[in-house]
Amino acid sequence: LKEYGKFAVLDRPKDSFRIKEHLLPEPDPGTMLLKVEMCGVCGTDVHYWKGHEPILKFPFPVLFGHEVVGKVVAIGEGVETDMLGNPVKIGDRIVPVPLVTCGKCYYCTIIREPIKCLNAQAYGHLGEDKPFTGGYSQYLYLSIPNTVFFKTDLPPEVAVFTEPLSIAVNAVERVKVNLGDEVVIQGSGPIGLMALICAIEAGASKTIVVGGPERRLKLAEEFGADETINIYEIKDPQERVRMVKEKTLGGFGAAVAFECAGVPEAVPEGIDYLRFFGRYCEAGNFSIAGKVQINPCTHICAKCAKIVGAWSSLPDHFVKSLKILEKGKYHVERLISHRLPLERLDDAFKALSTDYKIDGVEAVKVVIAP
Amino acid sequence: LKEYGKFAVLDRPKDSFRIKEHLLPEPDPGTMLLKVEMCGVCGTDVHYWKGHEPILKFPFPVLFGHEVVGKVVAIGEGVETDMLGNPVKIGDRIVPVPLVTCGKCYYCTIIREPIKCLNAQAYGHLGEDKPFTGGYSQYLYLSIPNTVFFKTDLPPEVAVFTEPLSIAVNAVERVKVNLGDEVVIQGSGPIGLMALICAIEAGASKTIVVGGPERRLKLAEEFGADETINIYEIKDPQERVRMVKEKTLGGFGAAVAFECAGVPEAVPEGIDYLRFFGRYCEAGNFSIAGKVQINPCTHICAKCAKIVGAWSSLPDHFVKSLKILEKGKYHVERLISHRLPLERLDDAFKALSTDYKIDGVEAVKVVIAP
Amino acid sequence: LKEYGKFAVLDRPKDSFRIKEHLLPEPDPGTMLLKVEMCGVCGTDVHYWKGHEPILKFPFPVLFGHEVVGKVVAIGEGVETDMLGNPVKIGDRIVPVPLVTCGKCYYCTIIREPIKCLNAQAYGHLGEDKPFTGGYSQYLYLSIPNTVFFKTDLPPEVAVFTEPLSIAVNAVERVKVNLGDEVVIQGSGPIGLMALICAIEAGASKTIVVGGPERRLKLAEEFGADETINIYEIKDPQERVRMVKEKTLGGFGAAVAFECAGVPEAVPEGIDYLRFFGRYCEAGNFSIAGKVQINPCTHICAKCAKIVGAWSSLPDHFVKSLKILEKGKYHVERLISHRLPLERLDDAFKALSTDYKIDGVEAVKVVIAP
Amino acid sequence: LKEYGKFAVLDRPKDSFRIKEHLLPEPDPGTMLLKVEMCGVCGTDVHYWKGHEPILKFPFPVLFGHEVVGKVVAIGEGVETDMLGNPVKIGDRIVPVPLVTCGKCYYCTIIREPIKCLNAQAYGHLGEDKPFTGGYSQYLYLSIPNTVFFKTDLPPEVAVFTEPLSIAVNAVERVKVNLGDEVVIQGSGPIGLMALICAIEAGASKTIVVGGPERRLKLAEEFGADETINIYEIKDPQERVRMVKEKTLGGFGAAVAFECAGVPEAVPEGIDYLRFFGRYCEAGNFSIAGKVQINPCTHICAKCAKIVGAWSSLPDHFVKSLKILEKGKYHVERLISHRLPLERLDDAFKALSTDYKIDGVEAVKVVIAP
Repeated sequence: LKEYGKFAVLDRPKDSFRIKEHLLPEPDPGTMLLKVEMCGVCGTDVHYWKGHEPILKFPFPVLFGHEVVGKVVAIGEGVETDMLGNPVKIGDRIVPVPLVTCGKCYYCTIIREPIKCLNAQAYGHLGEDKPFTGGYSQYLYLSIPNTVFFKTDLPPEVAVFTEPLSIAVNAVERVKVNLGDEVVIQGSGPIGLMALICAIEAGASKTIVVGGPERRLKLAEEFGADETINIYEIKDPQERVRMVKEKTLGGFGAAVAFECAGVPEAVPEGIDYLRFFGRYCEAGNFSIAGKVQINPCTHICAKCAKIVGAWSSLPDHFVKSLKILEKGKYHVERLISHRLPLERLDDAFKALSTDYKIDGVEAVKVVIAP
Repeated sequence: LKEYGKFAVLDRPKDSFRIKEHLLPEPDPGTMLLKVEMCGVCGTDVHYWKGHEPILKFPFPVLFGHEVVGKVVAIGEGVETDMLGNPVKIGDRIVPVPLVTCGKCYYCTIIREPIKCLNAQAYGHLGEDKPFTGGYSQYLYLSIPNTVFFKTDLPPEVAVFTEPLSIAVNAVERVKVNLGDEVVIQGSGPIGLMALICAIEAGASKTIVVGGPERRLKLAEEFGADETINIYEIKDPQERVRMVKEKTLGGFGAAVAFECAGVPEAVPEGIDYLRFFGRYCEAGNFSIAGKVQINPCTHICAKCAKIVGAWSSLPDHFVKSLKILEKGKYHVERLISHRLPLERLDDAFKALSTDYKIDGVEAVKVVIAP
Repeated sequence: LKEYGKFAVLDRPKDSFRIKEHLLPEPDPGTMLLKVEMCGVCGTDVHYWKGHEPILKFPFPVLFGHEVVGKVVAIGEGVETDMLGNPVKIGDRIVPVPLVTCGKCYYCTIIREPIKCLNAQAYGHLGEDKPFTGGYSQYLYLSIPNTVFFKTDLPPEVAVFTEPLSIAVNAVERVKVNLGDEVVIQGSGPIGLMALICAIEAGASKTIVVGGPERRLKLAEEFGADETINIYEIKDPQERVRMVKEKTLGGFGAAVAFECAGVPEAVPEGIDYLRFFGRYCEAGNFSIAGKVQINPCTHICAKCAKIVGAWSSLPDHFVKSLKILEKGKYHVERLISHRLPLERLDDAFKALSTDYKIDGVEAVKVVIAP
Repeated sequence: LKEYGKFAVLDRPKDSFRIKEHLLPEPDPGTMLLKVEMCGVCGTDVHYWKGHEPILKFPFPVLFGHEVVGKVVAIGEGVETDMLGNPVKIGDRIVPVPLVTCGKCYYCTIIREPIKCLNAQAYGHLGEDKPFTGGYSQYLYLSIPNTVFFKTDLPPEVAVFTEPLSIAVNAVERVKVNLGDEVVIQGSGPIGLMALICAIEAGASKTIVVGGPERRLKLAEEFGADETINIYEIKDPQERVRMVKEKTLGGFGAAVAFECAGVPEAVPEGIDYLRFFGRYCEAGNFSIAGKVQINPCTHICAKCAKIVGAWSSLPDHFVKSLKILEKGKYHVERLISHRLPLERLDDAFKALSTDYKIDGVEAVKVVIAP
């Protein structure tokens, strides 16, 4: 072949991305090479870029990008189907699961929670010595042993949401949204809106999105949010708590709240939204962004609260995510505010860590279409 | 009859208890009068006495005391059996459930969590206008409509632990201790030791009690704790975290931890004891004692933790508590360090809010035997 | 007042209903009198009429009818709001919960499963000595102590489905339909279609209804069923099992199946639809209709199945049922094939126990509009 | 080396075992060779021998035996520790997990229930072409890729129960025995007694064993059963149901029952032992032994029962099983009625499929000590 492809490398936090050209790999047995169609810019990548301490460790220089959709350009020996038994061939559209687990460690076999696999590796979290393993790239080389991927016929601007939606699927499973629950979502960014979709799908009788700015809340309403509270207008958290309670059955508070804002301060406010025996899902602080004060009595003990953490996602969450997207009820593609070439990655990261404006337009979801 | 009985009244926080004499009631239909044999001094009463804001509201002057065992001295019309169908007659030993729920409110019927009954009333939480409704008294008048009580043949010094043990039963149910879990208990006071018993009963493969002083840890070991960590000796929380982890399978941390220390600072330390996907039960901050800082990422989200609050107890927890005590495996009576007459209530409260010394002896469980 | 009203009385199984006129009650304190707008004919009533042994015992002569919607015509002292705090006044539309529990027995307080209240009473299950307690009547007298009811603004032809839908809500909660589950419903009668609605609401990724005849399957598709299998066309159960499996992910079988056909033979067939670790909800054999053979190894043990029974419903299920109906997504009123006067009750029962034809039209849901 | 070892081969159901000598393998990288100290004769092997259809398929001629404890005699390259990180060396005592799962199939990754791994292989279920893979052998060659094993210091006559006890651990987890549950165990063979141990460990407030003959019930009592019912004396199932109910709180029936008798008829009887909302664990019909009639209304629907199947076990169940055995509370070694050499395997299988007598002594647990 002897073809070349480009990918982005980040040498250190807050730096510019460096675009590198590299010879494309000839797929080894059990691997596959994708031509990247689209890769979403994840808020966690932005946290990493700012220098927040990551949970899933990675080396610098690093190849970021894990919300990928691409087409098969070369298949290694022995790869015949995806995990659901669908045959794969050159030209098929593929969504890979970024987190790859070992299936053999203490968390994989004894605790049976592979999301915390001790030997986990992930696309978008490897070093420059593993070319084409990040999604901010023209190609993605599915070369980590045990990589799981799914074939899909969804258009790329929908399929690119499989990974973020899978995060929300995991969150909903962890906190168990039940038929008839009144649910609050804190945060109206991509993860918040994915949690909204999952809460609706799981049978919430009412959904309330607390976030902003306006454009995002409009999207929330389009997706089916029953109520929104704009934090740029209602600046007092206690007033927001009052408003949420007023909107719930009997004024007692919500059954479930999701933290998808990614700021520590959201936690006590979100727990205050809940009725007694309410459940709270912390699904936004994926990297270490600081601490916050809580009251063990009123937030946990006497509240009889249940607070769960949801982090990352697994192949089963991808299956469920794809099934939701295939229903076609949610126009997730409308979240994409910017579709940028690889060369404009820096614009994306700068905007998403400052004023959320790119080319004068407010960013919601930015995707790289290399 | 025209007999008189004495009970203790507290006029305001930090005051001395006033002993009042009052005519004994003639039991109304559906009620019962008990001669109090023993009433435990609960740590929550001590918090109330200090002036901490209560969760279950009560008026001043108030009649405290809710860990009661007593004998039937008079029975109102229509009372024939306890909740399990055991016939009751004069002279029988009775353990009443202090929290009385309405069975009709939103939490009782729609949420089906009567522990947060909107109309809850509780023995030991009523005013001077309801004489003989607190356990620091010669008599307890079981007069709140829907009061649940159980007959028991346990000796009073064992039966007096039914209520504190029921608190731990609820805690274990909330956090779900499973067969084989490694469990840490923070706090070696009466609630901590009750949680230890319940954790052992629920099948913990290892129990570690973090507390002190020595006498309490010795009791923990007598009850079956596999390991103890003395906080008076190991003063650095991070060192205690290291020690707990070292004592668990593979060094990964405990499956479950219980906060029974009643201090806000225990919360982040206790969550740090856990392995990923560990569960934390906040069962110690029953009244409002302050706030504490947690890290939403490392304590909840990326930890994949589950944190639950457990507060108070219900009739079903009493049944289970009695069943454990009836097995006779745990010599809970050995926790009783002091058996004081009603007139020495002040000594108990002063000691339990300062140096834990009464008559030169270190207090563990103080009971009033009026 | 001195007004009279009519209600239907059944003297013995398979008899004609006798219409009786009786003086309307003056509501006692805590009670309410409704003018019945509509009462659904429940399949369980039909089983009772045939003489099947009931689970909730009732005397003959009996006043049947428990799927009621009506308007307040008189209010007893002390009734001010419904269970959710909505004020009620004359003219308001009301849906009562037929099962009334005592809140005090072993199942209500110790097991905390009031659906099996030892002292349960139910509208539609009382004798002639309790006039106006069945829904096949011009009036319903909400006179059982602790009766729970809800105010609603839904039209009567929708509100009349609150009770049957609440049965399905309970079933979905018991078996726990999770986001992304593939779900089969056996039976396309009213309960089957209500289970379909709840399965969709709870996030099923695919729903398959196995039933018939055609008209009912069309309604299933209108409500959102992804697939239907007509048992009048596909008569071999093993062929239906094959078809269900083929329609599920990887051909492994469904995650969940609901038995809403009410025939014992459905059980082994329905379990065969499941993949390993699938869950089965028996929600159709509400009265005793016979036995069926199962294989403990392949249907339970080696299947790693979970099989749950769901029977009746409680106030919380009514709240969730109303919330679903209020969304307006499902045109349940289209299930009503016949709206008959009280005097034609016999026609309804005869048809529903034979050929399902009334006035030459196939019956789906029959309601009495007295 | 060039040493030889012996193992037993079964050519067809009901045949005699053939003892074969074979050259010992030189361990490949990642494998290990054990000298078998003891291998329990499992009831499921007996069912296989009788010709009952197996769930985990195997070929004839087959090498049976999966309850193994042995000592390391040779270690392949790369094997350094067991799954818990304990270093292993020649001479260490090892308990292997017989079921080996692939970690990659639909059940391993999407359903996350590896017990139903589509590519599962198991020691004691392979053909003659895989020498030394069954436990009725002088040596066990841990050669299936991904084999999990644990090092233990327990004596072999205790360690040999790790596998059967792990089956009961899984059963208890599936049905969730909670603190305070009253539990019935049907069957007093090895699996029934293991379930008894696990039920006690999980906090049962009362345990009732229904089985026989006398010797086994005595062992049950030694292990801590509160009550036993001898089916050889009480032959009427309805009388046994009456007796069980009488022994439970309020006469309502048990919270949980385990089917460990392995006969289909046990199922309806066992469900009848339960109170409403009771849970039933079918953990005895591991191979296909026939059908039984149940009543969908009274056994499931109106009973509000939960019935779960528990089959086989995984590494996590082994860890918990070992932890229970290490506590030393249960003298499981007392179950061993016969310790036979490899050459007497036939005697074991004949006795266990007829009159349970070997050398005139009643068999409980038979182990092969080659």
